Amino acid sequence: MVTTPIRASSPTLAAAEPLPDIDTLLEPYLREAVRALEGDVPLLAGMVRYHLGQLDGELAPAPPGTVDRGKRIRPAVAILAGAAAGGDPATAAPLAAALELLHNFTLIHDDIQDESPTRRHRPTVWYRWGVGQAINAGDALFAAAHLPLYRLVERGSAPRLVLRLIEAFDRMAIAIVEGQTLDLGFEGRADVTPDAYLRMIAGKTAAIVRFATWAGALLGGADEAAAERFAAFGLALGLGFQVRDDALGIWGATEVTGKAAADDIRRRKQSLPILLLRERADTATRAELAAIYGASPIDPAGVARVLDLLAMAGIREEVDARVDALHDEARVALLAAARPGANPARDRLLALVEGLATRSS
Amino acid sequence: MVTTPIRASSPTLAAAEPLPDIDTLLEPYLREAVRALEGDVPLLAGMVRYHLGQLDGELAPAPPGTVDRGKRIRPAVAILAGAAAGGDPATAAPLAAALELLHNFTLIHDDIQDESPTRRHRPTVWYRWGVGQAINAGDALFAAAHLPLYRLVERGSAPRLVLRLIEAFDRMAIAIVEGQTLDLGFEGRADVTPDAYLRMIAGKTAAIVRFATWAGALLGGADEAAAERFAAFGLALGLGFQVRDDALGIWGATEVTGKAAADDIRRRKQSLPILLLRERADTATRAELAAIYGASPIDPAGVARVLDLLAMAGIREEVDARVDALHDEARVALLAAARPGANPARDRLLALVEGLATRSS
Repeated sequence: MVTTPIRASSPTLAAAEPLPDIDTLLEPYLREAVRALEGDVPLLAGMVRYHLGQLDGELAPAPPGTVDRGKRIRPAVAILAGAAAGGDPATAAPLAAALELLHNFTLIHDDIQDESPTRRHRPTVWYRWGVGQAINAGDALFAAAHLPLYRLVERGSAPRLVLRLIEAFDRMAIAIVEGQTLDLGFEGRADVTPDAYLRMIAGKTAAIVRFATWAGALLGGADEAAAERFAAFGLALGLGFQVRDDALGIWGATEVTGKAAADDIRRRKQSLPILLLRERADTATRAELAAIYGASPIDPAGVARVLDLLAMAGIREEVDARVDALHDEARVALLAAARPGANPARDRLLALVEGLATRSS
Repeated sequence: MVTTPIRASSPTLAAAEPLPDIDTLLEPYLREAVRALEGDVPLLAGMVRYHLGQLDGELAPAPPGTVDRGKRIRPAVAILAGAAAGGDPATAAPLAAALELLHNFTLIHDDIQDESPTRRHRPTVWYRWGVGQAINAGDALFAAAHLPLYRLVERGSAPRLVLRLIEAFDRMAIAIVEGQTLDLGFEGRADVTPDAYLRMIAGKTAAIVRFATWAGALLGGADEAAAERFAAFGLALGLGFQVRDDALGIWGATEVTGKAAADDIRRRKQSLPILLLRERADTATRAELAAIYGASPIDPAGVARVLDLLAMAGIREEVDARVDALHDEARVALLAAARPGANPARDRLLALVEGLATRSS
């Protein structure tokens, strides 16, 4: 049985004026960070720029719009949180660029670890240049991700605040790696609970969104209490985003996600739908699941059977409900965090939540 | 033919008083950085602490002295450069800890890339926990390596100087990855020149030693010109150290280096001895080398034949002479850089160079 694919639309970021375009704000910082990789070793910058969607597979320039560069949710959230807290949108732009680069570093290494051959409709870095060089591309991008943060002082932020944010940036990166370590450890295990899974994604995915909102708000002038409320918004948004992403990994269509259909089942990924199914299942179904998950990768018949079991147990509806609840939590936290009254950045963040919440239609 | 193994002695760092013990200075910062990895995921901190020699293979504490924790040349050089420039030795201790952690991050990833099963007489992290988790261990250690740098402000360094050093730290990390990218690209190629090789190790190995001396000197109060002279010292020392290390990879004995004998030949590593041999060789020998290097890994007979060819061409003597020249250059630069007169830290650095220069006896 094939479930209806989830719709392709990305959440719109182009809402209320006078907020400038996120890509335009990011661009100079992304360019500077990539330039730092352009030394004597063209392959290194080449791999990174390929991954970022700036170059095609032959390492020739890829005009904007011809290659999927990702949704850039994290940088958008950082910039908008800074503006919603009362700052100039440009103040948090270096932070936003650092987060976009950090996120892309994690993707390069994740793709090695997950043995994923494609990302954003193109071959992954490891698939194209081998595991060893892909490790290098990720390592270099991780180092380069720090560089925009050093520009914050030039943009007017106090050196001590910048040092505090950079330290928090590295601690957040550790939380991401912790989540990834848990995630890899889950593979092949039949005793992972939905709760353990949610703790894992709190690190692997939500930590960076939480940091984006917290640090963006501080740069925008929020006091500590308001920054914590922005962090609560980011955490709920990040969790909702990942649970939604898991749904896409099972029910999303290839042309939308750039991944193979039901790829997360084939790769025996322990995402929330599977964990909920296992928790709900009777003994016979659980045994059947165990038999299917004994093979690696799972064959097409096994994948189809898991899709059937998910449908019969109503898991997709349950996952959608959880996503909705997280998005509601995000909205409430944002309204408590942002300055009241006219606040176009807050409104654009609400529109972003709305876009993410409804893309299952 | 088996060449006499290189002697086991490490260069002594315990020279002139009143300089405190390097390990004692490092310890609190290493401990804090590792603690940052001890969240909900014991495996992550476990892998890192195992690699650092704090835990044994069962992740139980390894008492100091029972496990080889490496020579700690880089942190020693940073601390001593700071003191030789006129600072308190403790001032550069956070920098030294950051460098030791960064170096260890690169080793975890290098071991994956080189498929090395052992490091410091023990199984490597990837060999013990798999490639995916070893990537995580390295990534987390890279992030954690930054943490001691944030303590520099508390130790009295100006926030703007600290920000400058942290940015330079990340740019130096990029230079290391560039070197590693070149190094991987060299494998299996027969057209790598000794000059190209020296450019590669200027990034892969010498960049961190150069940075250690430059940043250590600045923290110790050196002006920009003196810091540049310390950097020249560090660069020559780092190059000499790596060329020596290459000699150990071919002529070092297993019980000394923790690596298999002639392991760099077996793994077809393009280190300086092999490149010099190829450059010197006549057409017939070059063809023979090409045939031997066509196999991967090279079999024991091939390894023995390469050792014979190296001996007949006098390559070991030539490599030793190059190491000596680099160490002479390091001494000259150090004497120009350090404060004249009584300067126990400078004297200890000279003793360190001496120890490194004579360990081929």
